[in-house]
Amino acid sequence: MKLDPRAAIRKGLAPRSIAVIDASDNPHKIGGRPLAYLSRFGFQGKVYAINPQRAQVQGFASFASFSALPEVPDLVIIALPGELAVTAVSECAAAGVAMCIIMSSGFSESGEAARLQEENMVACARVAGMRLVGPNSQGLANFSNGAVASFSTMFTEVDPADGPVGIVSQSGAMAVIPYGLLRGRGIGVRHSHATGNDCDVTVCELATVIAEDPGLKLLILYLEGIPDPWHLAEAAAIARARKLPVIALKSGRTPAGQMAAMSHTGSLANEDRVVDAFFEEHGIWRAKSMADLVDTAPLYLQGWKPKGRRLVAISNSGAVCVMTADAATRAGMPMEALSAQTQSELKSILPGFATTTNPVDITAALLSNSGLFGAILPPIARDPAADAFLIGVAVAGAGYDVERFAADAQSFATQTGKPLVVASSQDNVAQRFKNNGLVVYPTEGEAVNALSNFLSHASLLEHTGTRQPVIQPLPLLPDDVHMLDEADSMKLLKQLGVDTVAHAICHDVQQAVAAFKTLGGRPVAVKGCSSQTSHKFEYGLVALNLRSGDDVAKAFEEITRNARKHGLALSGVMVAAMAEGERELMIGAKIDPVFGPVMLVGDGGKYVEAMPDMQVLLPPFNTTQVKTALNKLRIAPLLHGVRGDPPMDMDAFARMAVAVGDCMAAGTHGITQLDINPVITGAAGQGCVAVDAVVYRGQISTAQQDKT
Amino acid sequence: MKLDPRAAIRKGLAPRSIAVIDASDNPHKIGGRPLAYLSRFGFQGKVYAINPQRAQVQGFASFASFSALPEVPDLVIIALPGELAVTAVSECAAAGVAMCIIMSSGFSESGEAARLQEENMVACARVAGMRLVGPNSQGLANFSNGAVASFSTMFTEVDPADGPVGIVSQSGAMAVIPYGLLRGRGIGVRHSHATGNDCDVTVCELATVIAEDPGLKLLILYLEGIPDPWHLAEAAAIARARKLPVIALKSGRTPAGQMAAMSHTGSLANEDRVVDAFFEEHGIWRAKSMADLVDTAPLYLQGWKPKGRRLVAISNSGAVCVMTADAATRAGMPMEALSAQTQSELKSILPGFATTTNPVDITAALLSNSGLFGAILPPIARDPAADAFLIGVAVAGAGYDVERFAADAQSFATQTGKPLVVASSQDNVAQRFKNNGLVVYPTEGEAVNALSNFLSHASLLEHTGTRQPVIQPLPLLPDDVHMLDEADSMKLLKQLGVDTVAHAICHDVQQAVAAFKTLGGRPVAVKGCSSQTSHKFEYGLVALNLRSGDDVAKAFEEITRNARKHGLALSGVMVAAMAEGERELMIGAKIDPVFGPVMLVGDGGKYVEAMPDMQVLLPPFNTTQVKTALNKLRIAPLLHGVRGDPPMDMDAFARMAVAVGDCMAAGTHGITQLDINPVITGAAGQGCVAVDAVVYRGQISTAQQDKT
Repeated sequence: MKLDPRAAIRKGLAPRSIAVIDASDNPHKIGGRPLAYLSRFGFQGKVYAINPQRAQVQGFASFASFSALPEVPDLVIIALPGELAVTAVSECAAAGVAMCIIMSSGFSESGEAARLQEENMVACARVAGMRLVGPNSQGLANFSNGAVASFSTMFTEVDPADGPVGIVSQSGAMAVIPYGLLRGRGIGVRHSHATGNDCDVTVCELATVIAEDPGLKLLILYLEGIPDPWHLAEAAAIARARKLPVIALKSGRTPAGQMAAMSHTGSLANEDRVVDAFFEEHGIWRAKSMADLVDTAPLYLQGWKPKGRRLVAISNSGAVCVMTADAATRAGMPMEALSAQTQSELKSILPGFATTTNPVDITAALLSNSGLFGAILPPIARDPAADAFLIGVAVAGAGYDVERFAADAQSFATQTGKPLVVASSQDNVAQRFKNNGLVVYPTEGEAVNALSNFLSHASLLEHTGTRQPVIQPLPLLPDDVHMLDEADSMKLLKQLGVDTVAHAICHDVQQAVAAFKTLGGRPVAVKGCSSQTSHKFEYGLVALNLRSGDDVAKAFEEITRNARKHGLALSGVMVAAMAEGERELMIGAKIDPVFGPVMLVGDGGKYVEAMPDMQVLLPPFNTTQVKTALNKLRIAPLLHGVRGDPPMDMDAFARMAVAVGDCMAAGTHGITQLDINPVITGAAGQGCVAVDAVVYRGQISTAQQDKT
Repeated sequence: MKLDPRAAIRKGLAPRSIAVIDASDNPHKIGGRPLAYLSRFGFQGKVYAINPQRAQVQGFASFASFSALPEVPDLVIIALPGELAVTAVSECAAAGVAMCIIMSSGFSESGEAARLQEENMVACARVAGMRLVGPNSQGLANFSNGAVASFSTMFTEVDPADGPVGIVSQSGAMAVIPYGLLRGRGIGVRHSHATGNDCDVTVCELATVIAEDPGLKLLILYLEGIPDPWHLAEAAAIARARKLPVIALKSGRTPAGQMAAMSHTGSLANEDRVVDAFFEEHGIWRAKSMADLVDTAPLYLQGWKPKGRRLVAISNSGAVCVMTADAATRAGMPMEALSAQTQSELKSILPGFATTTNPVDITAALLSNSGLFGAILPPIARDPAADAFLIGVAVAGAGYDVERFAADAQSFATQTGKPLVVASSQDNVAQRFKNNGLVVYPTEGEAVNALSNFLSHASLLEHTGTRQPVIQPLPLLPDDVHMLDEADSMKLLKQLGVDTVAHAICHDVQQAVAAFKTLGGRPVAVKGCSSQTSHKFEYGLVALNLRSGDDVAKAFEEITRNARKHGLALSGVMVAAMAEGERELMIGAKIDPVFGPVMLVGDGGKYVEAMPDMQVLLPPFNTTQVKTALNKLRIAPLLHGVRGDPPMDMDAFARMAVAVGDCMAAGTHGITQLDINPVITGAAGQGCVAVDAVVYRGQISTAQQDKT
């Protein structure tokens, strides 16, 4: 009986029995370390070593072969290379093993023949309903039950402790580096899993199972590529439903990083801004670096329910106050003044040269009176100006009652229930605050950065939609993609409900001149339509601002001549009104090979590549989402009207974007790529029109994803 | 005999004798801790306690009063408050003390009366040639001679060691927090000085003396305000002459930080972008945060002479390789491929699934063969692709020969002589590399960031001009500033050699129509000139693109009517050709109350405030500097020509900026502020013209700075 594919993964993570093929007596070898860990970390199930040379390996009974085992194990660790691993997988699959972890390297990352071996293993496992982790996997480590099927050195170096953090990573190093850094901060880590080549169980699918663990308060993912965004969306949805925050460290942000990622695990290096949009859509916070991730993680474990970003800071150093205010402003955390009532209470406690606004500077007077700190906290706790706090202990130690500060800070934190971070560069001082359960950073800059990350994620989760994540099959890009000429592109846009500039398609000079007159004698543009080029300007197929029939006639002739010269077939010549409006914007769409339909909205015109100012949207979306995206543009002030300009018709633009987005999401019309630039946008109420457009179409076949 | 003012400071830093007024037996009190430190840190000179209640204080002979001392001490520490401190200062000054440190708070930071007390102390000291540090100073600490005249708790908490770093700070906390963090990394710190209220000796003047210390390899400054940039320029020049790098942490970057800075030490909060430009001009690197500063500091102490920014990275983790490539790209550090020769040598050493390009991924194969690391280093050392290296030790420890890695890395570093950073998140592994003299960071992100900072500073210093820093008296802004109307503004610009658009000033309709004809019948702009407003558009005093005499006449009438309606006197009406060109740029100038003349160049037009894109220049400057600034603009690609546009006439624009800059530097024409916007800039060779300008003038009186 085949297990449900997820059930097999669950069984592999909480196995009743584990076998190690190619088990070694040397605990520093790949086939030896898992055995050492299984005994050391208290795995309660059965453990079988497979090694024909020995009767016992590291104290476990050893068997000559897989077939000699007294039962079929739930989980099998394979430390064999190449063809030997393939054979072992097929034996396991045939016997009904739930999951295998293949630790050996040298498969799909090593060329065609090895890639085929990997494929064979997957095919063999799929037939039997067995799941495969790896190859090239460092293994899985579950410290809730001691099923530490991993050869990572890190678990020897840094003692594990079961706790509220789960880490799922493609990379072995990135499964254990955050483990080590978090353990160094006294935080328990339950899961540290590395999936390697992701031949069957991917990091994202494994995350769907780990996200179910009720013991977790934080799920950390390390990704180099996201070939299966539907699994990630599912994991994020499971986590959101349980209020489990997910942080992702996604590398390969830059071209150099993408190249390195491809040579590392052969990962598809996704386009970075699309990854950002996808994470945002699903409420996943993207850490900027490992330090950023590890600094922010402890804040998730405090049980806070943040309400906003306003910071109140307290320090015994004016300079720490200044640097905190700088850091907070940069992070977008306002520091509001304390109420008059609070200030007057603080003035009655602190010396005259102290500062009682916000940040509050106790000054070095704290050295002479250790009570000052505790005394000012109650009025500050009562003040409504804070959503979060920073306590900066610039210098303390001998002469200061640091124990008292730490206890006072803890009571204050408990009383307010609001997020609170401490900055102290002195290890011994920091330790006393940590002993009181507080989160401490060496400097105010790191403290503010972490707090800001945490609050941003809380706000993101609050605004993450409740709609089900789009479980998307992988769209295959069609081979028969072709470009529509401008006439057909505009026609298609009209069908979608997009307003296009008034125009006529002409086939001779007389038609062109007549079109000019029909358009009311206003200035017109004349453009040659050809499905053979999107570089109309470069080929001299465009004339703008023509104000007379003669000029139109001349332009028609010249454009026809230029097309002939460059061997471009014209399907017609467009005579279009010169649209008037406030600004040229743009709308773009394409089918990403992994994430599916992706759209761009932003500043338009000639310089979109030279000076890009655009935002990504994932269809389908509504007009509010378009306007939120527009408000993040550099040109946002202009959209609202500055220097006497009226505000622009963002509603009309948003409707146009939604019309295109709905079509892209539905996959109708076979649009694979689309660029509307410019969209001339008028003042509020004046609408907007598409003035130029290129559409690429094809037969989009959506292959059913290989979702076992 | 009055000492030279600097000589007095030097004497105060290396005193033969020190007296403490209000000396305390309690080593945790302000009047007690300096005594404890003087005995503990081996000060060899005489120490006198002054306390009428005791015969001995902390083992030092105590005297009833300053006048009872057997000699006049070089340095006096005053721990008395208010009027008592004023009296003590006057006694010291009269006796011929070289320098006093006033530790007490409650002077200029506490209101008018106390501010006057501070002024009195300064006046009294100046007359006698005595220097004052503070008040509100934590004190000076010189660990080269044990003259630790400071009450900072930090020196009790973290043991000092004399070393190559000097720290000069306004703030007490910021004098010792970097001290503590650097000591924690095993780095010796010689100077940790806090100047407090800077009533006489400022942080920048003190830096001029510390910069002379031949024992230093790095000078760190913490500043909240820079009221005396000439001292900072002098300190930077002294340091540059000795190849001593200077890092500044300047807080008050943001409005909230500036407010906090003002309430902290009453610092003038300088405009941030001008501070950036000033630092850059003088080769000072500005740290972004305390963590940034402390992370970067160790790299200055290695004796490297960096030649470029190209990074080669080596790790036993592919993921570390990917994250390093991301971080390097973001930091602007190219990662070039290794030569074919090197790659082939690496291939012969590493397993097939390893990566031999750059970054080099040794893979987990290192676990089975600890020799791989040392084996690949020689070919990499021979390769010309690297200016700097990163070694990422993802995971190591049991099973790995870490001692050997560290020794191999050290030989490699010595052999190449190039900057090298190590990333290791494991304390015990990091420690072995540190023991070998290498600089180690917990993560690759922090390592790359620090390396990038260091290399950027090296490059800045290489490009810092040799011209003498401008030692500038503080320019006082005149009270009688007045705005010139556009006609006079343009006239003045012409005198400076600035090309202005062809125009005529007209006083009646006939003149205006005649001017239109004189300008050749081309489209013109008609603008009312008034010295009462710079908001011509808002008051309806501008009409653009007029193409006929009739339109010009109508515009003249309407502008005259609008001026009357708003009660604005017109000195004339300008009829100007509509300039043609590629883009509207801008040039701005003003007199900063502290830094003197400051200029801006950038994108021009209507939206300069809404979407600023400009760079600061400090006059005088040359055309190359203008072009360098322009190349940092967002619109830089447009300046060079994109999408078939020609490159713009940057030479002409640069000459215009230099003409204005020379005038601002010379202080001629009494210009206090100037805005030329737009400067219509044509294609290369076509020049540029000022189309609109506002100039403010006044009588600039340059007060002689109070430079003792």
